[in-house]
Parts: sequence; C-alpha cells; structure tokens
Amino acid sequence: MTAALKAARRGHRGANPLVGAAILTKDAQVVVGHHAGAGSPHAEVDAITTAIDLDVDLAASTLFVTLEPCAHTGRTGPCTQAIIDAGIPDVVFALHDSNGVAAGGGTVLAEAGVRVRSGLGHDEASALNVRWRRSVDAERPFVTAKIAQSLDGMVAASDGTSQWITSAASRDHAHELRSRVDGILVGTGTALTDDPRLNARGPGGEPLESQPVPIVLGLTSLPPESFLALNPDTVHLRTHDITAALGELHARGMRHILIEGGPGVLGAFFAAGAVDEVFCYQAPLLVGPGRSSLSGLSTSTLSEAVSLVPDETAEPAMSRHGPDVLLHFVVGESCAEAAASGAETAAAETDGVSTNIETTDAYFI
Amino acid sequence: MTAALKAARRGHRGANPLVGAAILTKDAQVVVGHHAGAGSPHAEVDAITTAIDLDVDLAASTLFVTLEPCAHTGRTGPCTQAIIDAGIPDVVFALHDSNGVAAGGGTVLAEAGVRVRSGLGHDEASALNVRWRRSVDAERPFVTAKIAQSLDGMVAASDGTSQWITSAASRDHAHELRSRVDGILVGTGTALTDDPRLNARGPGGEPLESQPVPIVLGLTSLPPESFLALNPDTVHLRTHDITAALGELHARGMRHILIEGGPGVLGAFFAAGAVDEVFCYQAPLLVGPGRSSLSGLSTSTLSEAVSLVPDETAEPAMSRHGPDVLLHFVVGESCAEAAASGAETAAAETDGVSTNIETTDAYFI
Repeated sequence: MTAALKAARRGHRGANPLVGAAILTKDAQVVVGHHAGAGSPHAEVDAITTAIDLDVDLAASTLFVTLEPCAHTGRTGPCTQAIIDAGIPDVVFALHDSNGVAAGGGTVLAEAGVRVRSGLGHDEASALNVRWRRSVDAERPFVTAKIAQSLDGMVAASDGTSQWITSAASRDHAHELRSRVDGILVGTGTALTDDPRLNARGPGGEPLESQPVPIVLGLTSLPPESFLALNPDTVHLRTHDITAALGELHARGMRHILIEGGPGVLGAFFAAGAVDEVFCYQAPLLVGPGRSSLSGLSTSTLSEAVSLVPDETAEPAMSRHGPDVLLHFVVGESCAEAAASGAETAAAETDGVSTNIETTDAYFI
Repeated sequence: MTAALKAARRGHRGANPLVGAAILTKDAQVVVGHHAGAGSPHAEVDAITTAIDLDVDLAASTLFVTLEPCAHTGRTGPCTQAIIDAGIPDVVFALHDSNGVAAGGGTVLAEAGVRVRSGLGHDEASALNVRWRRSVDAERPFVTAKIAQSLDGMVAASDGTSQWITSAASRDHAHELRSRVDGILVGTGTALTDDPRLNARGPGGEPLESQPVPIVLGLTSLPPESFLALNPDTVHLRTHDITAALGELHARGMRHILIEGGPGVLGAFFAAGAVDEVFCYQAPLLVGPGRSSLSGLSTSTLSEAVSLVPDETAEPAMSRHGPDVLLHFVVGESCAEAAASGAETAAAETDGVSTNIETTDAYFI
C-alpha cells in the first residue's frame, strides 16, 4: 500500500482524487499505476496494463489500491470488470468510495469471488484528498489559485506596468496548468484591462490539446469586440457571490477551475475559504510601492491569516522556472475544520462497510 | 580550474571573496579546497592540507586557484610560503589580487622558481565576486539583507502581530547567518518596538561562538534599560545617510553586515543600491492587509524594480526550513553598472600583470 500511496502522489490535484495502485506478485515484484487526471485510465487499469506488458502472473497477485475500485462506466470503463477480467484474486483498498454512481465496487468484486479487504492506509489515502473531498461534498469545483507576483507580493508597479512580471518559463508552466482544468476564471476588471483569451498555449503559441472554458466573474458587461465576448464558450457569471458562482459552475459540469485574478477576485475566493490549491510564481524583483497580488482579505491579526501547506505530491513544492520560483501549496485547514472533516470521514466509512468485505489495518507491505 | 571554481562556490558570500583551489596530480587525481570565511584557511592551504593527508606527490602537481595566492600574513599566514614549502612547481590562477597588502603573490612565487600562469577562468572567477569587489572598491562592508515575511510580502498583520511569522527552523538558520557577519543592523524603530539582543544563538538558546556587533541606525535614543543600550559593544549611528553609516562601519573594521530591518531601513538600503545579497524567509501564510516587509522604495514603474539573481553558490538558491521557504539571491546590476564594472576589472587586471607571469586563457582542465 505504501507503493500505491506513493504512486497516487504522481497525479495532479484537481477534478479527481489522487489514486494509486500497486500489484504485488508472488515473487515480490511490485508494479505501480496512478490516475493522471480526467479521461486518463484509473490507477488500477494503469497498473494492470503495465503488468500485462511485463507478462506478470496476475492470477497469483494482490492488487493494492488507495480508493475502492469503481463499478461504473464514466469516461473510462468500470475498474471492477478490469480486475475480474485480469483474474486478480485478491484486492486490498484503503478508502471506501462514497461517490454514489461509482460506489459498491468492493461488493461487486466480492460477489465475483475476489477476496476483498479494506482500510489499510486509510488515513494516508484520506489525507491526500481532504481538499478534494471537501469540494465534492460542497458540490463545487476544486479550486486552484494562480498568483504571479514579485518577491514583495506585487502584481504590478504603481503605474500599473505588469506585463511579463514572470518569465517565459513560468508562463509555459502556467499554460500547461491551464490545459489541466475545466475552466479559468478572472474578474471583469482583469477582463477589461488585459483583454485576455484565457486559452492554453504551448511554448510556440500553438493551442494545447485540452482547452479550458473562459469564465468571467462580475457585474460589468464586456466590450463586444473583446476576445472573451467573441468566444461563444465564455461563461459570464454576473454576481459577486463566490458560493453561488461555484454552484453554477458545478451545475455546468465543471469539476476543476483555475482562478487567475485580479487581486480582488483572488482575495474574495480566499476570504470565502473556497481555494483548495495555490501555485505562486515569484519573479526575483522587489517592486516597492505597487499593486498587491491579493486584496480584500479582511484579516486583522496574524492568527487570521490563510495558512498554506507545501504540496509535495506530483511536483516538488518548490521549483525554478527560469529566474522565477514556483511554490505549490494546498490550503491548510483550522484544527476545528480538520476535526469535523475527520469525523465526517469516519461516519462515511462506517456506513460504507459491507459485511462481506474484511476491514483491516494490520496488513502492510 | 573548473574544479577550483566549483570549490569556490562552497564558501559563503561576505567579508571575503569566494575562492577555490584544485590540485591536479600527475596521475590525474584532483584535490580541492575552498575558503570558508574570515579566519578559516585560504583555499590553497585548505587544498594543500588535504593533499598532504592523502599523501599526494605535490612535487609533481599543479595548483589551480581562482585568486592570486596572497603574499601577506593576515589572520592566516601567506599562501605563497605554503605553496613554496609544499614544493608545488606549477601554479595557475584566474584573477590577479588587486588588494594592496595581499597583492604580488604571483611575483613572489615566480621569483622562488615556481612556474606561474594566470587568466584561466578569469571571467567566471570575477563573476563570482562582482558584488564583493564593489563593496571593497566603495570602502564599505558587504551588505546582506534578511527579509522574513509571509507569502504576500507582509512582516506583520494590521494589528502589528508578527512574532514567529517564520518557523523555528528558519530562525535557527537566521542565527547561523548572524554568526557569520561582523555586525547586525536594525533601525531605531525595530530597536524600540522589539527590544532585540541581536546576538547569535543556537537551537537551544546557547550563544554561538562568533558574535556580531549590534548596530542601531537612526536619530532616536534608546531607553537606557533596553538590551542594546546595556550592551557596551552596541554601535549607534545617529544618521539616516546610508553611505555615511556604511563608511563609519568600514572605518570600524567591519567587512560584512546583516540588515535585519525594519521595513523602512531595508527599503533605504535597497534604494541606496547598498544591498549585495538577500536571504528571504517566506512563511506559507497569506496575511492580507498588513505591514509590508519593505517600505520607502520609490519605484514608479516595473523597470525600476530591484532585480535579484538566484544565488547557486554555497547553499541551493531555494531551500525548505520547516514549512518555510528560504530564497537566496545576489542583487543584480543594471547593464550600465555591469559594463562599468567590467571595464574597471579589465583595467585593474592590465595594471596587475607582471612580466614574468604568463597570461593564458587557453588552458583548461
């Protein structure tokens, strides 16, 4: 399960939970797989495919997976069928899947004669997906915030100059990030000032394969000749209510959105507790007086600050992109939130355990 | 010379130039040494000591060093004598030493029958020490600025709460940094608000071996019962003139000082172009409205921002200290400054070349 948890971390946070799988063969080989994001094979299928390529004897193997295998056909086929077809006789998973349509995979496997156990690595697998689970429970998209600023937290100098504050390498990374999300949101202020396209482009300016939906938040109408107004896919949310805006995007089927600014919109999402993950690009500049990258956070004392936790999953929590530093965080939670979240998870688990599945926490590889 | 340049980077920027040495033996072994800071052995002596420990045949070796070996006794003995005593027949150095008392080492060696060549790796060795050379030329200490802030550039929340904004691990690193400098400078505002001791302490609170001189900058007198007023070593500079203050500290023999704040003092040093190196500790917090880590920079447009360059010498340019990120920079220079500095260096080099030393730039290892 340790190998499965490690594999899970190779995925990207976003629309789907981080899930990893590891197949342990009778001669103690380990074949791993992970879920790389929406539309990609699930972790179990990724590991099974590799194992078949390696000519592993699956009929004498155990599959460890960090989430209960799904029993439904979404963008990919059901993992339970893939496991049954592969002839794997023994499955251990960490977390029950509480997602209505996908749930019940453990029971399906058990009824097909597979030995199924659960609970091993429960806490670690759950911790990987705390923020994702919260967004699912709240029926809103997972929210990634992008901040691009100088070392002293400025997004522009006092005369408004801001173009290319970060490097070309940072911008390439940011476009790759755009291609991973369902939608990119900016405020009407940014839309009016910058006339952005909000598309995902490669280093040569070519469009990337997956394109996000442009989203504009705010009451002001856009000029009809602006790029966003001309794009028929643009969603204009005429509200300042963050919760309502996220509910609308969820209803439109969006499961992962990227907030790109400006400072007021970023501050409003942080103030609403609606940011799950942060990518902060920092240019090695001290701008002095200027426009802060965030505004509207109404803290008055240090204990009210938004607490972030370095994210050591897919990519290192800090990396260099040209002269810039990129810091990757998940948003921390207060002790009260963590306790409430833990209790909810425990309750969901108890409800989800079916009697023909053994629950184990004393089974380690 | 590549190995010597690499070894030079193991030193710390500060009172002394970064210098590295490499001894190439007749059987192509390489033994390196570097200068670790004031009072430590010079790079040549460090390498020779290691080579003797390893029983290397120095009489059949070539010594590469990034700076002309010194001919004078400072805190350590003359390197020229150590080279002659070791019986090394062949020395190649990158840069002439333009420091009055230490200069002329190449000539001393040549007169003792050592084959001496210079110029190899000149540009790289010079680039390592651009800021150090500038502080020497200006007869002021090398200036390191320490910034400890939240991710959004705040040093305190709007109610002034700031204690422990960064982690214990960051503070331990900052105390180690304090123990490397001759003096620590704060403004009278910080002195009055925080009543700091400005000493260097270990993780258990114990004083470190080397203690900096506390320096206070500003016109206001300190309360007689404050720690800094009670410390007989404290230097109070009653001025707001950064150049005058640095001249006074240089006259008192200080060659490396650390600026710890507050925001107005940091801003004033940056505005005066008097900062050579920056350590920026960032806590993973978004504070929102608060007190900025820097004030008084009078930029109005992005091109006037202070440009920093990630420092990849002794430590990585970015490192984690508990949850905090530490970024290490040298201060960049404008194109005009770089050109002027290059011209000065070239002039100094030409003056310093003596006729019995071959100048080479076509000799690589």
